[in-house]
Amino acid sequence: MTRSIVLLSGGIDSTTALAVEASMRKPSEILALTLFYGQKHDREIESAKKVAEYFNVQHMIRDLSEVFSLDKNCSLLKSSTAEIPKSTYQTQIKTTGTPPTYVPFRNGVFLSYAAAIAYSIGAEEIIYGAHSDDAGAAYPDCSLSFFSYMKEAIKYGTGEKVILHAPFIYFKKADIVHVGVEYNAPFHLTWSCYEGKETPCFKCATCIDRLKAFEANGLVDPLLKNAERL
Amino acid sequence: MTRSIVLLSGGIDSTTALAVEASMRKPSEILALTLFYGQKHDREIESAKKVAEYFNVQHMIRDLSEVFSLDKNCSLLKSSTAEIPKSTYQTQIKTTGTPPTYVPFRNGVFLSYAAAIAYSIGAEEIIYGAHSDDAGAAYPDCSLSFFSYMKEAIKYGTGEKVILHAPFIYFKKADIVHVGVEYNAPFHLTWSCYEGKETPCFKCATCIDRLKAFEANGLVDPLLKNAERL
Repeated sequence: MTRSIVLLSGGIDSTTALAVEASMRKPSEILALTLFYGQKHDREIESAKKVAEYFNVQHMIRDLSEVFSLDKNCSLLKSSTAEIPKSTYQTQIKTTGTPPTYVPFRNGVFLSYAAAIAYSIGAEEIIYGAHSDDAGAAYPDCSLSFFSYMKEAIKYGTGEKVILHAPFIYFKKADIVHVGVEYNAPFHLTWSCYEGKETPCFKCATCIDRLKAFEANGLVDPLLKNAERL
Repeated sequence: MTRSIVLLSGGIDSTTALAVEASMRKPSEILALTLFYGQKHDREIESAKKVAEYFNVQHMIRDLSEVFSLDKNCSLLKSSTAEIPKSTYQTQIKTTGTPPTYVPFRNGVFLSYAAAIAYSIGAEEIIYGAHSDDAGAAYPDCSLSFFSYMKEAIKYGTGEKVILHAPFIYFKKADIVHVGVEYNAPFHLTWSCYEGKETPCFKCATCIDRLKAFEANGLVDPLLKNAERL
C-alpha cells in the first residue's frame, strides 16, 4: 500500500526528501515519481533511478515532455536552442527577472500529476523538495506563495484526501545538505548540472548553488571529487 | 497572437464560456483546449471540434488519459468497469459523498496543463467554465475553494504572467443557459451525457442537470428535441 509519493528529480533536494521519508516509512509505502519534461540534462533520470534503487522504493517514470515542447525560449529544454547561462540565479534575476531556465509552470504540472496519481492509488501525501534559496527566489514555481496555494488547491481539489508537503520550503540549500548528511542521502548518485554532459560544468546556476551548499557544510561535493579524479 | 485559452469539453458550460470570450476577442486570439482523459463519453470531443469550428478559433486536442488510467474506481473512465449512476449529484452526495464519477484531480491537471501552454505561447488568460450548481457541489475540483487557490497558484507559479478566470463560478447551470442564449452559444452542437451513446441517456447526473437548466429557462434541450425526432 503506497502512502506517500516523493517527487524525485535525481538532484540533492529531492534525494534528501526521499532519505527523510525513507527513515519514517517502509520502502513499500513510498513511490518515487520522476517526470521527464524534455530537459537537456535527462541524465538526471539515470540518477533518480539509482537513488530509488538505493532506497529500494517503487519508482515511476513518466514522460511529460510534449506539454513543454511548445516553449522555444527556455534554455533548459531540448526544444530550445538557447544557451544555458553560466551565472548564478541572483545575477540572472538582476538582469532578466525570471531566469531563462524557467520551465513554464513545470512544478504546477508535476504536482497536479502527482495529486491525480496519489488519489488514484490511495496515497495520502506528496513530498516535494522545494527550498527558499536562490533557485526558490528565482523560479516562480518554487516560491513559498506558489507552494502555499498549490497545497490548498490539492487539498480542496481532492476532497481533502491528498496533502502536499514541502519539508524544506523554509530551508536554504546548505540546510538540505546538512539534513542529507544526517539521513545518509546518497549524494554521490545525484545529478544537478543543467548541461547533462559526462561531468558537471560547475559553472551553471545549479552547479554553483550545489558547490556552495556543500562548502557551507565544510564538505566537498562528491561529484567535484569524482571530476577531479578523472 | 493567442491571448486566451478556453478549456472546451464540448458541454454547455465551456461552450457558453467560449461564446462569451468570442464576443470580446478576435477568433485568432482564442485557443480552445480540449483534453481527453480516458472518458467513456469521448464523443464529447467531436462536439468540442464542432463548437471550435463554429467560432472559427484555434483548437488544440491533447491526450492525458495515461495519467488517469491508474484509477479503477471512477465509473466515468474506460479504465473502470463500474456503472455510471442513474441519479442526481445530490442523491450521490448523500449516499457516497464524492460521486463515483469524480476523476482524480482532473481539473487540477487540466488547469496546470493550460497554464504551461499559456505561458509558452504568451497567452495571458485561461477561461474555465466551472459553476456552483450540483456538479460544483459534488466535485471537489469544481469547488470555489479549489478554483480560488488554483487561481493564486497559477498567478504566482507563472510570475503573474497567466491569470485564471472562472466567469460562472457563482452561477447555477440555469444561469449559464441563460447567458448562452444571450450570446448565441450553439447548444445543438454540444454533448454532456456520461454514457456517450448515440443519443443522451437523460438519466445520468449530468443529463438531469442539463435538462433542468433548460427547463428553468422555459426551454427544451435541443438534444432532447433531436432524440424525440429519432
